[in-house]
Amino acid sequence: MCHHCVIENVKQNMLSRRSLFKGGAAVAGAAALGALPVSAAAQSPAASMPAAAGWSDLTHELWDTFPTYFGGQQLFFEKQYDFAKDTFNLYELCLSEHTGTHIDAPLHFTADGKSVAELPIEDLICPLVVIDIAAEAEENPDVQVTPDHIAAWISANGDIPEGACIAMNSGWDRHVATDKFRNVGDDGKTMHFPGFHVEAVQMLMDETSAKAIAVDTLSLDFGPSPDFIVHNTWLPSGRYGIEGIANLGALPASGATIVVGAPKVRGGTGGPARIFAFA
Amino acid sequence: MCHHCVIENVKQNMLSRRSLFKGGAAVAGAAALGALPVSAAAQSPAASMPAAAGWSDLTHELWDTFPTYFGGQQLFFEKQYDFAKDTFNLYELCLSEHTGTHIDAPLHFTADGKSVAELPIEDLICPLVVIDIAAEAEENPDVQVTPDHIAAWISANGDIPEGACIAMNSGWDRHVATDKFRNVGDDGKTMHFPGFHVEAVQMLMDETSAKAIAVDTLSLDFGPSPDFIVHNTWLPSGRYGIEGIANLGALPASGATIVVGAPKVRGGTGGPARIFAFA
Repeated sequence: MCHHCVIENVKQNMLSRRSLFKGGAAVAGAAALGALPVSAAAQSPAASMPAAAGWSDLTHELWDTFPTYFGGQQLFFEKQYDFAKDTFNLYELCLSEHTGTHIDAPLHFTADGKSVAELPIEDLICPLVVIDIAAEAEENPDVQVTPDHIAAWISANGDIPEGACIAMNSGWDRHVATDKFRNVGDDGKTMHFPGFHVEAVQMLMDETSAKAIAVDTLSLDFGPSPDFIVHNTWLPSGRYGIEGIANLGALPASGATIVVGAPKVRGGTGGPARIFAFA
Repeated sequence: MCHHCVIENVKQNMLSRRSLFKGGAAVAGAAALGALPVSAAAQSPAASMPAAAGWSDLTHELWDTFPTYFGGQQLFFEKQYDFAKDTFNLYELCLSEHTGTHIDAPLHFTADGKSVAELPIEDLICPLVVIDIAAEAEENPDVQVTPDHIAAWISANGDIPEGACIAMNSGWDRHVATDKFRNVGDDGKTMHFPGFHVEAVQMLMDETSAKAIAVDTLSLDFGPSPDFIVHNTWLPSGRYGIEGIANLGALPASGATIVVGAPKVRGGTGGPARIFAFA
């Protein structure tokens, strides 16, 4: 049996046991969980965080059939130890790095760019700029963030902060548990969801010190993109991306700080991340 | 071929390709990477973080042969797309949840306790108490954090803050790339490294509102433990643990806040986490 077939067999075996895992394909509305105040930290007289600080969780819960760019399942579980028999529970997970709320490191679209472990933490904890295109996305799923959107944000909020993460809030996070998240068109293959336009990321590269872009959809490029042009422009510059971010609607356009819990896997091209913000 | 054998075959196949992954078994001294200032966030006039705030990275880099409690390899890579051929790089990872700097959720040692996705974010972002036993660990690798250590911390620093994470700094993080991290004794099986004593976690449960404990070793229980008694006492109470934390030596005993980027995997018993602190 060839290696590929062995892998596929393992996946099928794991898939058949998927019902072991509670929750199945249903989703508990992760988008509703954002903007929780962190009373514990605020209560601590020792903590240096302002007492009024509020934190949000920008991470979707991840389950085995979380929607994927390529359409196939990308997360598989095998229970290696079981509480009833072994006195503890433990799973082995097999997953694509680019699953769920996750990071695209420069190495994802370069021969030898920075891996996810090499992103400096000053790029992971930075000012968050939220560009709201939700109303436009409601009318046109193929809408893209353009230089005009960035210019409008600057007019309303002032200059883009140094070293910022520029996030697209298209409202698409609320579709995560439905077919609308991939939104395949009548041709049965082309996806339709918002993303960044290459001219917008070129503007960010030319005129700002932005370190990251984030989208609440499956790809930095909009759904119909034939060529990953935003990936191919942004990531080779040494900057990184976030895909599948959630709950941006709970945040102000300006003034929040994002804390990106990127996995620290040596040589990794990205990976599922736990992402918080405070504002 | 039975399922177990198929899995083992896949692992062996992946293992044989390990040399593809840069870095191999060598380690780049992750412990030396902590305590980086986050100038970007501090520079942003819009950010609500105090300008003087400093962030640390409490996460070890994770590589395929990162030392494990059970001794075997727990992380395997398969390159599914290659830049030269496919214009992008992407790996599939197979890993035990309990690998690297990682979380133990209550579900790890209970039939139906909270999964890692169910930990509320107010438990993940909380005051950090650092108990330093590094000098004792230098003399005795089997040293445990006792109620006396906690009482001494309170005498020096005041009450344990509400909802805190209590971390053991034994200095063991600096051994991560060597056999000293597992430190197997002359009998060829018993490990020797520091951990919490069950009386200390019982005291934390009885007298404080602590939400988490953290160790810079492979287990909440000290190496020679025959019975996981700390796991079996702490986790069923609904609290969680952190194993393999790094760089605690860069932090004050009191006054820091920990930000635990726990994976948000539905039904997960834990998982590799990206952990930061600011002080």
